[in-house]
Amino acid sequence: MSRKTQLARIGIINVTGYVGAELARLIHTHPQVQLISVTGRSEVGKRVSDVFPHLADIDLMIEGDLGTADLVFSALPHKASSEVVSTLFGKDIKVIDLSADFRLRDETEYERWYDFTHPATQLLQKAVYGLPELHRREIESAQLIAVPGCYPTGAILALAPAVKEGIIHPDVIIDSKSGVSGAGRSLSLGTHYSEVNENIRAYALEGHRHFPEISQELGLLCAGSSLSLTFLPHLIPMTRGILSTCYAKLSEANIGSGDGGERGIRQLYQDFYKDEPFVKVVSDPPQTKQVWGSNFCFVYPTVDRRTDRLIVISCIDNLVKGAAGQAIQDMNLVLGFPETLGLEDLATYP
Amino acid sequence: MSRKTQLARIGIINVTGYVGAELARLIHTHPQVQLISVTGRSEVGKRVSDVFPHLADIDLMIEGDLGTADLVFSALPHKASSEVVSTLFGKDIKVIDLSADFRLRDETEYERWYDFTHPATQLLQKAVYGLPELHRREIESAQLIAVPGCYPTGAILALAPAVKEGIIHPDVIIDSKSGVSGAGRSLSLGTHYSEVNENIRAYALEGHRHFPEISQELGLLCAGSSLSLTFLPHLIPMTRGILSTCYAKLSEANIGSGDGGERGIRQLYQDFYKDEPFVKVVSDPPQTKQVWGSNFCFVYPTVDRRTDRLIVISCIDNLVKGAAGQAIQDMNLVLGFPETLGLEDLATYP
Amino acid sequence: MSRKTQLARIGIINVTGYVGAELARLIHTHPQVQLISVTGRSEVGKRVSDVFPHLADIDLMIEGDLGTADLVFSALPHKASSEVVSTLFGKDIKVIDLSADFRLRDETEYERWYDFTHPATQLLQKAVYGLPELHRREIESAQLIAVPGCYPTGAILALAPAVKEGIIHPDVIIDSKSGVSGAGRSLSLGTHYSEVNENIRAYALEGHRHFPEISQELGLLCAGSSLSLTFLPHLIPMTRGILSTCYAKLSEANIGSGDGGERGIRQLYQDFYKDEPFVKVVSDPPQTKQVWGSNFCFVYPTVDRRTDRLIVISCIDNLVKGAAGQAIQDMNLVLGFPETLGLEDLATYP
Amino acid sequence: MSRKTQLARIGIINVTGYVGAELARLIHTHPQVQLISVTGRSEVGKRVSDVFPHLADIDLMIEGDLGTADLVFSALPHKASSEVVSTLFGKDIKVIDLSADFRLRDETEYERWYDFTHPATQLLQKAVYGLPELHRREIESAQLIAVPGCYPTGAILALAPAVKEGIIHPDVIIDSKSGVSGAGRSLSLGTHYSEVNENIRAYALEGHRHFPEISQELGLLCAGSSLSLTFLPHLIPMTRGILSTCYAKLSEANIGSGDGGERGIRQLYQDFYKDEPFVKVVSDPPQTKQVWGSNFCFVYPTVDRRTDRLIVISCIDNLVKGAAGQAIQDMNLVLGFPETLGLEDLATYP
Repeated sequence: MSRKTQLARIGIINVTGYVGAELARLIHTHPQVQLISVTGRSEVGKRVSDVFPHLADIDLMIEGDLGTADLVFSALPHKASSEVVSTLFGKDIKVIDLSADFRLRDETEYERWYDFTHPATQLLQKAVYGLPELHRREIESAQLIAVPGCYPTGAILALAPAVKEGIIHPDVIIDSKSGVSGAGRSLSLGTHYSEVNENIRAYALEGHRHFPEISQELGLLCAGSSLSLTFLPHLIPMTRGILSTCYAKLSEANIGSGDGGERGIRQLYQDFYKDEPFVKVVSDPPQTKQVWGSNFCFVYPTVDRRTDRLIVISCIDNLVKGAAGQAIQDMNLVLGFPETLGLEDLATYP
Repeated sequence: MSRKTQLARIGIINVTGYVGAELARLIHTHPQVQLISVTGRSEVGKRVSDVFPHLADIDLMIEGDLGTADLVFSALPHKASSEVVSTLFGKDIKVIDLSADFRLRDETEYERWYDFTHPATQLLQKAVYGLPELHRREIESAQLIAVPGCYPTGAILALAPAVKEGIIHPDVIIDSKSGVSGAGRSLSLGTHYSEVNENIRAYALEGHRHFPEISQELGLLCAGSSLSLTFLPHLIPMTRGILSTCYAKLSEANIGSGDGGERGIRQLYQDFYKDEPFVKVVSDPPQTKQVWGSNFCFVYPTVDRRTDRLIVISCIDNLVKGAAGQAIQDMNLVLGFPETLGLEDLATYP
Repeated sequence: MSRKTQLARIGIINVTGYVGAELARLIHTHPQVQLISVTGRSEVGKRVSDVFPHLADIDLMIEGDLGTADLVFSALPHKASSEVVSTLFGKDIKVIDLSADFRLRDETEYERWYDFTHPATQLLQKAVYGLPELHRREIESAQLIAVPGCYPTGAILALAPAVKEGIIHPDVIIDSKSGVSGAGRSLSLGTHYSEVNENIRAYALEGHRHFPEISQELGLLCAGSSLSLTFLPHLIPMTRGILSTCYAKLSEANIGSGDGGERGIRQLYQDFYKDEPFVKVVSDPPQTKQVWGSNFCFVYPTVDRRTDRLIVISCIDNLVKGAAGQAIQDMNLVLGFPETLGLEDLATYP
Repeated sequence: MSRKTQLARIGIINVTGYVGAELARLIHTHPQVQLISVTGRSEVGKRVSDVFPHLADIDLMIEGDLGTADLVFSALPHKASSEVVSTLFGKDIKVIDLSADFRLRDETEYERWYDFTHPATQLLQKAVYGLPELHRREIESAQLIAVPGCYPTGAILALAPAVKEGIIHPDVIIDSKSGVSGAGRSLSLGTHYSEVNENIRAYALEGHRHFPEISQELGLLCAGSSLSLTFLPHLIPMTRGILSTCYAKLSEANIGSGDGGERGIRQLYQDFYKDEPFVKVVSDPPQTKQVWGSNFCFVYPTVDRRTDRLIVISCIDNLVKGAAGQAIQDMNLVLGFPETLGLEDLATYP
């Protein structure tokens, strides 16, 4: 379209997964950028619209090598991504990486959680953790942005106000429930339809790879003290959406007289997020369907008065605010566009 | 927002159903119109965002009476809609009715299929059937537009080229499979989760109300001859989407030598829809997920060579191209906007 | 069938809900009992097989009043059930009540949680809580058995060994995820297909009615001390199944050297349930699909070593072990049959 | 269990697929047979209950070679099955094959539809097509039984009475909708959860392998004339169940005066199936949920009076009446047990 002249030129490395395809969808309707090149590890030489018929209006060939772009998204898996991204860094190009490879500051965590030696440890301190609600300023001037994982996005946004204000005991439980698309497009028995439908299971009981990310970011908010954090994800029979239920005892000073402190905590959350375009502190327990397809995170803090326990529930779409949408939000910040540009869509309901 | 000054002023009658809410969602991101008033039959006095948390950014109260608007959508049920619409007609206002009340030209059909005497039969000839692919010109100058039903949209678009070109025998079967949202937000045992999940059933075997609509529009395309049409809908466990499978024997003249006439028929379909922005003649059997949340209709014609039977499959999102999206498309035509404005979203996949 | 002569004569009060229908299904294949009479609040005068076509082989009329039976199941809702059951008590008839009306020993709890004054408080002490794993002896000689709620069944079986052995701190969190059939066959927006599908939500954040039941039974196991219990249920898009994830810090004495105490705790659980035909301490995280349609409860205890926290996951089918199956198990005990009779079916997978 | 002494000894070749596991489940509760040996192509050396936790009570090791059995089920895929079965034939052992390898009498069909040269064509005439409703006598004395495919079972039972009585024109359309478990446990993008959920698609438009089977069996019922048959399957988002909708014009002689012949046709169907324990001619449009987990086939014939078209709808559980349950029914016949033994379970609803 003619409106696409003189727009920022965007590339996607590995468009053939769910995150890559979601990026392409969002870029297609973004008024200030133009998708000019996409690569894939498979499907090279096919048209995007042949691999993904829903992207019928995107007229691009999947290539083996990326063309010249102003900004590149990497939707490669971990390890593969850092290998490619490290070759791009330093050139006159912004990189937004959707893998885990630049999210953790401590390089030893990659060996512990991801079983590989990081190939570009010097970049770990230069990369910015792309959660705008906590790192907006750094993102604006970053050259390399690590888009947060889907679980961490929901969990951190649920707990950040409480942790930062020190109103809870350090014993924190995050019980998350996720749709299946977070597991990606690669085949496995665990994502085979007949195994998932009409079923729920917990997984990664020995520790999920998103744990160190949550721990790192919440740790930054309560410097000096340390959290005793349990994070347990569950897979439920739906495609998109993560609901995280977070539990922590309230510190005594914060338990109010009549309502267990609920009003004060609610106010604290509203103040914390009052200027955030994509975080809504809602007044009823949220549902993932209310954010389906949108970049919103709905957060609901409440108090179990029988036990003086804070319960915070958050909902996101794992492929939008939990991946591609947040990446576009980061892109808007780093390219100087209005933060919400191209992300105005409300949830598709029902 | 400031960009909304001097925009066309839009009202929605009965915003509280699925179609009304979907209209509100689409209008919210449309650049040339502004939603200024919404009514409901229940929920009057509540904010839209309280009733529909996913419409968090729409700051409107649900009223009992509509404010002054340039164009009004009625999302009332049949019978109720014609009563209200007939009071609006003749004023300086465009009306787009999403009920069945102005789709049929023959007033006796309302008694036969909908069990009521039409209160404004004089409007039946003035109303335009709002399927742009068949009635674009009339829509542009209409004062009252009847948005087609969801099943008819998919079925007519699948069969129109074949019927118009006379390449099939008049014996036609339309076997449709629909998600549940088409049944609306009103409660019934037939849409109770535990009854629908992991289940499929045919319904309306004695005749579905969308039958006369399909029959009327296909009949207009083959004046002189008449079709022997069977239409049978099925309810399947998903929220959105209709796939219609249409069967008809090919007329002998149209059966080619090598491929049963398939290439010629394909070309015929492509020619028929070559200027249509929302109908795609696809080269693989389409899936409803490929159009989920979008205004596209995917159409796939093929030939069963063992029997010389034409099979045409079409897919739409019943709430978008099958209702609210098509209504916006009609609005664009009647208000002189580009036809695709506000409808650029590709399907949300997966 | 001829094999049904001289069998125990069974009645079901209110067969027209999901629990009533499930009872009828299980009784149909039970070799020692015969269903002789069923009542309904609606549908009186219709055949069971007309209301429930899946019960095609059950040849009974739904009546307004129950015929003479040796044992009666009441599948009425709370309040209605106690009114009817109190008229049966004392006659030569065993009563198994599937409502909440005889589960709680403290009559004041009914006013607090169920908003009604119990009409037969004298029966509360005579009723036996029908969880065989904790109350087998009392069930065998009971005249009135209160079948546990679905959530309590899964939660209590998950926590009983740990609570009884005193290996955990009193701060306990139960995060439960349930299919929709637990909400019954009555219509509500919250169980409307399009609202539930592709969605998850927490509910009853102010306190769920099953809370006092869990609290009562776990309290009996740790007399002297008291638990600080949080129970939060979630609704997920499936029909049957409850997975409960339970969290509690381990008492220090129980944290072993190498594996955080996991092996010892596992052994403790296996010992606790070693003679139970329907509780399996499994060696991998269980899934609800693994018990779908069966009377099994799968229990999986593990330790989060980073935090010395015990995590126990349990899975049941809410309509079988969580309702009708457990009621049959109680029936077997009270009528002196082998406990597993008629409950041999393994889960239907996938 | 002790009740299992002196029972018929049963083996399953390839227990590790869905059909194999379903056979094991059904055999487990069958009172006259005992599962003594199971093989797998993968998972050899593991316990059945480790691979399939839902089969918790089956205490058998998966072996590479089968032990000595009185009757063997082969749940191997096509081609592999005939290779193994041909080595068993002639020994003192009954074989029930659930693959396609002995369903078709014309050996050339295997090359056309299954792309392999049949290794044991001499057995094709000895094998009996295991649909008891059409071939009961032959099954009773067979040595090798070919269990029908899932689609053919539902389609043939829907059409057999009409075809045999000659009341329809030869132009027949079978539009089938199936759950995903029919595609088995092998991984593919087409059965990946995120691709199937909230989606429907037609497939095998060029011809499905079950076509020649339907054609063969219906052809046997109308010797002399020939059918012009179109069969099109669709995949819908559920695990189990097939609903087939069949369309054919009524022969003129069969169109009655008042009701289009409906009453007469209904009577014809009831007469045809009056002694069949597992086929029910139902009086309302059937739903797959009504037969879920059971061996029933529900059949509903009706007439579209506007077009004098017969519509017949049938529902089965594809893994029970469409596979393992029908195989057990065949086993009962060939071993001289009551035909319904071990198959008494009603559908699990909801």
